[in-house]
Amino acid sequence: MFSVYSDEYYMKEAMKEAQKAYESGEIPVGAVIVCQNIIIARAHNMTELLNDVTAHAEILAITAAEEALGSKYLNECSMYVTLEPCVMCAGASAWAQLERIVYAAADEKKGYLRYAPDCLHPKTKIEYGLLESESRNLLLKFFKERR
Amino acid sequence: MFSVYSDEYYMKEAMKEAQKAYESGEIPVGAVIVCQNIIIARAHNMTELLNDVTAHAEILAITAAEEALGSKYLNECSMYVTLEPCVMCAGASAWAQLERIVYAAADEKKGYLRYAPDCLHPKTKIEYGLLESESRNLLLKFFKERR
Repeated sequence: MFSVYSDEYYMKEAMKEAQKAYESGEIPVGAVIVCQNIIIARAHNMTELLNDVTAHAEILAITAAEEALGSKYLNECSMYVTLEPCVMCAGASAWAQLERIVYAAADEKKGYLRYAPDCLHPKTKIEYGLLESESRNLLLKFFKERR
Repeated sequence: MFSVYSDEYYMKEAMKEAQKAYESGEIPVGAVIVCQNIIIARAHNMTELLNDVTAHAEILAITAAEEALGSKYLNECSMYVTLEPCVMCAGASAWAQLERIVYAAADEKKGYLRYAPDCLHPKTKIEYGLLESESRNLLLKFFKERR
């Protein structure tokens, strides 16, 4: 059981986005951005569909959230994302000054912690591990099917 | 004097983009992407116009170049950019597998070298310092006017 407005609720919404990516043949990563308990942006990885390496779930979600708020800055927003952000997405979150990032699974190969552990905005709080196995299992399933 | 197809020629084209940014009230950074001696993408910083922190010259140029080539990968392309890429843009260039990046001025505060010196694609060659003073002077002029 989980209540609405919980981290688990929002991460489950991000997992729904990851599932959409999976069903479209995209590497299954999803993200939602929440402001004052309202989901203001949802996105999933669209690099294949858009033929664009920058179309990660986080970049699309940040752009959509800025549009929704009419602000370049997301300093009262939390982003829930199903995989540790890469350097590009962590850098984007720093420019947007996200208040908080919660991610599910670690990405030892391409995650920002490997290359740029200090690149987040100094005020951004970071948490991880929520629904880690659900996210990891979906990613493993995706890559196994393509081997 | 400079010949067409020289690094200086392409960096001057990137500086023209930076000048356009300056005239629009944007932090003056410009970029061009070149494939087989042809400029396939030109862009300048549009973060204010688009109200989007991800709208850096490099991100816009990479997306436009991918669109022009119909490919997610730019491994036969060079990017000329008037300022050292930030972590976000360096990360995007890594995903795009850019063959070469030439930048003009260093960015000691926000440049990728400070936070993620190893984040570029292993095959990406990097050079810097071409038209450094022109780029730096334009940036200094921009910030001085806003003080």
